[in-house]
Amino acid sequence: MVRLQGSVHAVRRLGGLAFVVLRDRSGTIQVVAGGKDDLPLEAVVEITGRARQDERAPGGVEVVADEIHMLAQPAAPLPFDISKPALAASPETVLEHRALSLRHPHVRAVFRIASALAGGFRGHLAAGGFTEIHTSKLVAAATEGGANLFRVDYGGRPAFLAQSPQLYKQICVGAFERVFEIGPVYRNEPHETARHLNEYTSLDVELAFVDLDGLLDLEGALLAAMLGAVAAEAGDALEALGLTLPAVTPIPRLRLSEARARLREAGRSYAPDDDLDPEGERLLGQQLLEEGHDFVFLTHYPAAARPFYALPDPEDPALTLSFDLLFRGLEVTTGGMRIHDHAQLRASLVSRSFDPNAFAGYLEAFACGMPPHGGFAIGLERLTAQVVGIQNVRGATLFPRDLRRLTP
Amino acid sequence: MVRLQGSVHAVRRLGGLAFVVLRDRSGTIQVVAGGKDDLPLEAVVEITGRARQDERAPGGVEVVADEIHMLAQPAAPLPFDISKPALAASPETVLEHRALSLRHPHVRAVFRIASALAGGFRGHLAAGGFTEIHTSKLVAAATEGGANLFRVDYGGRPAFLAQSPQLYKQICVGAFERVFEIGPVYRNEPHETARHLNEYTSLDVELAFVDLDGLLDLEGALLAAMLGAVAAEAGDALEALGLTLPAVTPIPRLRLSEARARLREAGRSYAPDDDLDPEGERLLGQQLLEEGHDFVFLTHYPAAARPFYALPDPEDPALTLSFDLLFRGLEVTTGGMRIHDHAQLRASLVSRSFDPNAFAGYLEAFACGMPPHGGFAIGLERLTAQVVGIQNVRGATLFPRDLRRLTP
Repeated sequence: MVRLQGSVHAVRRLGGLAFVVLRDRSGTIQVVAGGKDDLPLEAVVEITGRARQDERAPGGVEVVADEIHMLAQPAAPLPFDISKPALAASPETVLEHRALSLRHPHVRAVFRIASALAGGFRGHLAAGGFTEIHTSKLVAAATEGGANLFRVDYGGRPAFLAQSPQLYKQICVGAFERVFEIGPVYRNEPHETARHLNEYTSLDVELAFVDLDGLLDLEGALLAAMLGAVAAEAGDALEALGLTLPAVTPIPRLRLSEARARLREAGRSYAPDDDLDPEGERLLGQQLLEEGHDFVFLTHYPAAARPFYALPDPEDPALTLSFDLLFRGLEVTTGGMRIHDHAQLRASLVSRSFDPNAFAGYLEAFACGMPPHGGFAIGLERLTAQVVGIQNVRGATLFPRDLRRLTP
Repeated sequence: MVRLQGSVHAVRRLGGLAFVVLRDRSGTIQVVAGGKDDLPLEAVVEITGRARQDERAPGGVEVVADEIHMLAQPAAPLPFDISKPALAASPETVLEHRALSLRHPHVRAVFRIASALAGGFRGHLAAGGFTEIHTSKLVAAATEGGANLFRVDYGGRPAFLAQSPQLYKQICVGAFERVFEIGPVYRNEPHETARHLNEYTSLDVELAFVDLDGLLDLEGALLAAMLGAVAAEAGDALEALGLTLPAVTPIPRLRLSEARARLREAGRSYAPDDDLDPEGERLLGQQLLEEGHDFVFLTHYPAAARPFYALPDPEDPALTLSFDLLFRGLEVTTGGMRIHDHAQLRASLVSRSFDPNAFAGYLEAFACGMPPHGGFAIGLERLTAQVVGIQNVRGATLFPRDLRRLTP
């Protein structure tokens, strides 16, 4: 005797018998439902019966139902059919009807993978002595510059949604030495692109007593652990999507200037201080993939292209000890060493026309003595999209927010 | 030869020798610094030397420094002294100077415990087949009622900060069956109390195919796992604070009506439908503590006191299959079974004067067929405060937000 609870994923009729494909969180199983062939798709049922091996059944096992008890019936026709192997609906329809599209095994698999990536992130860092922090998303001032901020009415005073936990995680490094945070960050993006969201999940890391190479070593090991968690916990999701995970180690490390030189050889033109454009990132990713590398670190970005807290390279102060990580041609991480000297940090703020008084609570950490430190942030949705091979990051976001989309 | 990196926590002078107490993420150690007695508190140093056993040293080991290298100096006098065993500053000063107060071993210990609680939450649920989700905090409509919302300017349109991930986690149950989320939630609290914050960290759980007793069983096992994680990962924090962890199982289950009856016997007065007031919760918690219970579940709250999605008790529809969890007299969890029938849910919205059209993306999940389900949410800061014995929840919040406080 077995008891199954789940949703009617598909119904097939064969030789006067109804076969119900029942879906639960672990996958699907075939149920021989006798003459009961009128179960609506997505009905929620409880089935008691007997399991038996049958080579013709998917997975080699099926359940012969003795009793089928209806727990919930769909109240309306479904907007599209999720029983087909591929989801035949436009990306717009998929997002508009999120409650239904999330139930498709391929869509569900994407978020099982995201869940495992986040779990691997946490597990690896907690084992390494990192403290998990939860910092405020409501801030009084712009942290990285003034643009792209969402404004909140905070009891009559203006407040903003934080673009990153950057300043808070640095403050916390002064206390906990190694910290991480998983939380939402906000960008009021004026343009709609396949790689930008107005709200995404940032996997943030910050630690003391590290140098640039140490940061890259940490992120390499962390990515290996995160992909290892996907293999261990979401193997069925990988199978459903027919995916092979990328190999992580060792990740090549190129200076941005070297990357530009490579791309110039491939016919693209860059001024000496230019960051790569998305097309350049894509092309470089392709070159490296052909050389066997899914990932590449780009280092030593110009100071002008980085925020005020980026640590200048002592050997060339026009550059910073910073990096991006490209994964198959898409930037999934930005990070680097930070200024830890109070006077230098204050001067950096002033040189960019920030008012140091607006950063009082942050600067105090440095006035009290801060260790050398650095960190990075991984965009969970972008990373998931690249692991799965989704072109638009919205496909790896449960409830995406952009210029047009505030529901569901 | 050992190499230590950390902050100068304290300096003592004895018989012409300087003893430096060095603090890093793992704790403190005594360093014999020879004649070097001018190290400022909170200076960041790298020390090379030799370790030796010495019964007079705290922990029985000290390091004799050969070389002390200064990595960062405090730039200003410290606002208060964190080298004393107890932090001698007002709660207001502690929050105002968060960058420094977080470095005090007792304060740091609080957040080490919070980190372990969150880690235990995740570990237990992930092992139980739950998917971790990250849902949007920017919503178009009020989810639980109209009051206490923060308004966001979303590209000229109004949006609100979500008061809970309730509707999203229910939608996700339709796809993943078991989900959890750790994230910020927002309440525009008009009053300042010791137990309310405008932003806190909600540990949310939602699952299908469960009943009220099953929910209480799950939360009991989950709390045991979370406190177990504290014991395993934050033993030094418990020791620093001199804490003993509460025992979890079995947690008594009282109907709200029974709790009211007990409190009436203790001289308090309640109308038949009244929720408990904070003083009643405190008194009940005290009674139960005397009976050996740190925790108590209160169940079967009146429908009038619960949100529209609460499932009425089939045996008495004026009540709901809902619960609160009190921990030493403070509510740390609210939860219960939810309505899963589409028509019933729509009618419940209408009966409370909500416009069902504002809930279209949510109702669609139910129109497509939803399993019976329930869930709950734990306030991380409240739970941490009660574990530690902190009277004001702000003391268990890294960067609290309230009417007056938007920085640091």
